[in-house]
Amino acid sequence: MTCLSRLTAEMPHVLRDVEDRYLEEPRGHWRGQALAVAAPTTTQEVAQILRIANDTQTPIIPYSGGTGLVGGQVMETGNPPILLTMERMTAVRAMDAQAGTMVVEAGAILENVHGVAEAEGWIFPLALASQGSARIGGLLATNAGGVNVIRYGNARDLVLGIEAVLADGTVINGLSALRKNNMGYDLRHLLIGSEGTLGVITAATLRLFPTPSATGAGLMTVPSPQAALDLLRLAQSRIGEGVSAFELINKTGFDFLAEVGPDLRIPFDEPPEWSCLIDLGLSHGTPADALESLFEEAFEAGIVTDGVVAQSEAQRKEMWAVRENIPEANRRIGSVSSHDIAVPVARLPAFIAEAPKRLAEINDFRINCFGHLGDGNLHYNVFRPKGEARDAFAGYRSAVKTCVHELVHEFGGSVSAEHGIGRMKVADLERFGDPGKLSAMRLIKRALDPQNILNPGAVLRADP
Amino acid sequence: MTCLSRLTAEMPHVLRDVEDRYLEEPRGHWRGQALAVAAPTTTQEVAQILRIANDTQTPIIPYSGGTGLVGGQVMETGNPPILLTMERMTAVRAMDAQAGTMVVEAGAILENVHGVAEAEGWIFPLALASQGSARIGGLLATNAGGVNVIRYGNARDLVLGIEAVLADGTVINGLSALRKNNMGYDLRHLLIGSEGTLGVITAATLRLFPTPSATGAGLMTVPSPQAALDLLRLAQSRIGEGVSAFELINKTGFDFLAEVGPDLRIPFDEPPEWSCLIDLGLSHGTPADALESLFEEAFEAGIVTDGVVAQSEAQRKEMWAVRENIPEANRRIGSVSSHDIAVPVARLPAFIAEAPKRLAEINDFRINCFGHLGDGNLHYNVFRPKGEARDAFAGYRSAVKTCVHELVHEFGGSVSAEHGIGRMKVADLERFGDPGKLSAMRLIKRALDPQNILNPGAVLRADP
Repeated sequence: MTCLSRLTAEMPHVLRDVEDRYLEEPRGHWRGQALAVAAPTTTQEVAQILRIANDTQTPIIPYSGGTGLVGGQVMETGNPPILLTMERMTAVRAMDAQAGTMVVEAGAILENVHGVAEAEGWIFPLALASQGSARIGGLLATNAGGVNVIRYGNARDLVLGIEAVLADGTVINGLSALRKNNMGYDLRHLLIGSEGTLGVITAATLRLFPTPSATGAGLMTVPSPQAALDLLRLAQSRIGEGVSAFELINKTGFDFLAEVGPDLRIPFDEPPEWSCLIDLGLSHGTPADALESLFEEAFEAGIVTDGVVAQSEAQRKEMWAVRENIPEANRRIGSVSSHDIAVPVARLPAFIAEAPKRLAEINDFRINCFGHLGDGNLHYNVFRPKGEARDAFAGYRSAVKTCVHELVHEFGGSVSAEHGIGRMKVADLERFGDPGKLSAMRLIKRALDPQNILNPGAVLRADP
Repeated sequence: MTCLSRLTAEMPHVLRDVEDRYLEEPRGHWRGQALAVAAPTTTQEVAQILRIANDTQTPIIPYSGGTGLVGGQVMETGNPPILLTMERMTAVRAMDAQAGTMVVEAGAILENVHGVAEAEGWIFPLALASQGSARIGGLLATNAGGVNVIRYGNARDLVLGIEAVLADGTVINGLSALRKNNMGYDLRHLLIGSEGTLGVITAATLRLFPTPSATGAGLMTVPSPQAALDLLRLAQSRIGEGVSAFELINKTGFDFLAEVGPDLRIPFDEPPEWSCLIDLGLSHGTPADALESLFEEAFEAGIVTDGVVAQSEAQRKEMWAVRENIPEANRRIGSVSSHDIAVPVARLPAFIAEAPKRLAEINDFRINCFGHLGDGNLHYNVFRPKGEARDAFAGYRSAVKTCVHELVHEFGGSVSAEHGIGRMKVADLERFGDPGKLSAMRLIKRALDPQNILNPGAVLRADP
């Protein structure tokens, strides 16, 4: 019997139509295929589906919010998969408002998780542009980053325990809320970031954090990326952990917003070449005062040249709207190639100086370089010059990507800082990843998923 | 050819005498054996030793500072092992004083790492009683905890990357200093905490933290463990991340110090039943002021009944000397059974109330319950009544341990919070661990170490 006929016979209630939305992905680069969509409501159902798939050697694509940017959720070719959507497993199973922990199922949407935490006086600090549709399972499977990593860490740092199902249907019950637990190997971190290739995360115990008593933001212009780094160091030495986000913005971002929208007010007469959005969350003291003192000291030192401090939550939201709409403006312009890179923080200025020179050897481009400066993680996106036709530059994609990735590698960096490998960067991982690590990854994959049914072709080549 | 004859022929320079110190462990419960001691000076030599051991199916005991408390470093029976000591690999390979990262070899002693960080204006916050002899490799292999976990996390949270050698000599080059890197499975966290059973950690990139501009401490007496928790919550809401440590101390600790020493000044006329040692590291403001405000507010609320705030660094050190010498006093008295446990923080008061009742069903005991309240991690150590002979109570060890561990399990806790499994708790892991997790652990062990040469019998039974 085939997988589909067994599912139809044994658990018809989980089957759903293969709607288009399951086969599309945000950038429109790839289109998936699926034999069927299975939408379980319990961990036991997930286990049963995996057992059937494993028995019949049928690929399973774990499907979360569908917001991934590297094709981890779309399988274009090969033996058609069952798409396993977590959208019906969205419960908050437990909330411990005293300890600051929450057990949620993998299908919970990030924004809803924020709301539940806030209603109990806590925050869950994972924050990124797609939070209205991204689901916890996918966010953990890809070890998502976002804007608050500098203070709170990556997704994996926000998780105390996980429940997951392995390829053969074995359930791992690891929903511990303990802060310390050395009872055997850390499978939590192995599954987090494995992009659905080692197991399906079905629930997680999340760490919540105290709500800062006051928040604030400032946008400061800096003469150079090095000055931005100096400003970050100064902010951290004066304000400590109160620095919740520190984002670098390049003039190109403002230009794109002006060119294609969304139409947003920017607080400068002239868009500055480089600026930094600094967000504070303090447990005592006044953020606006702290930012003004920081500005004064930085201005004296020649690190900043201009700046505004939000005087209200509305102004803070305006500043963040600028930052958060830059990806949308990028999308409207349409990049030749986009890169999610990290280099050691101290080497960022040298990287930012060198990359345009290398790219200029290929052609003229516009570069929008922005992102999470404090983490060394930039979104380095390359666009055709203004007035040129989009199609005329599509052919440069591969050369641009290779150029940027090779430079990142020269700088000791990563060509996947927060988006993961998916199917898009499998060759990059083979080329730039450590051979010893890759061989260990293959051994682990084979041990836990010997039939290679879990998201085959993502992270590791299906047929190495 | 045997392993030893190959080592003698191929790399005689790494061989050392099997001194007694390699076979002993701190509590004197077990005595190891060794065919030879190998002391490599490079990662390549570690790889060569492992290849020879793997070829000849010879056990390898990775040996670090020898301070582990669960027998992970001593193999009493079975095919005699080669003891692989990291004591000659102690170099600081790189120090990035701008980014706050340091690459150290596995043999570096923790106290020396502290010194190197401090000389550059940073701190490495892993802190525990054995820091004068514990080495980085073992601290990571066991995911050590200590007193600053509440603020900075466990050992695994302080590591950006590791270099390690697998059983077949494959070197994993993962000494990245990147804050964000999603290039494949997270082998770092799999190896950290695997207690030398999956690979030998040879070096690590450590995260350093800004030195707080001012530190301080206070010792406050509380009417109950619940009040101690309330005080912790109040401290965190008022002082935020500035709370670096929050330790619970029971009267028994003071009594033991008075009874057997070390002779230390304690700042109360009468040792209080329960007290909390609170340590602060602030980036701005005055710790003594913050502690005095905290005391006043807590006193008003009936959460604390008495307290002293250190007025100098010398007084702070005095307070810490009390806390840090409690384990030594325990050792001098000699426990019937000691337990390194964690329960969900909110359930600690109920656990502390219930455990003595259960133990009283076995016999009269003295209980010294102290430790890392904020992490839910207590050292729950059980002693014979005063005046009784030590030998008369040795026979209770197994019953006491079973009683405590079963209660911890009932409370959803862990019977190894920070010390690991070693050989001592293999049966506990089998009994209390999740079966799904255990089966996945065995698959991973078999995949990465098919001959079972790496620390056989630790964590997982050698012959399951």
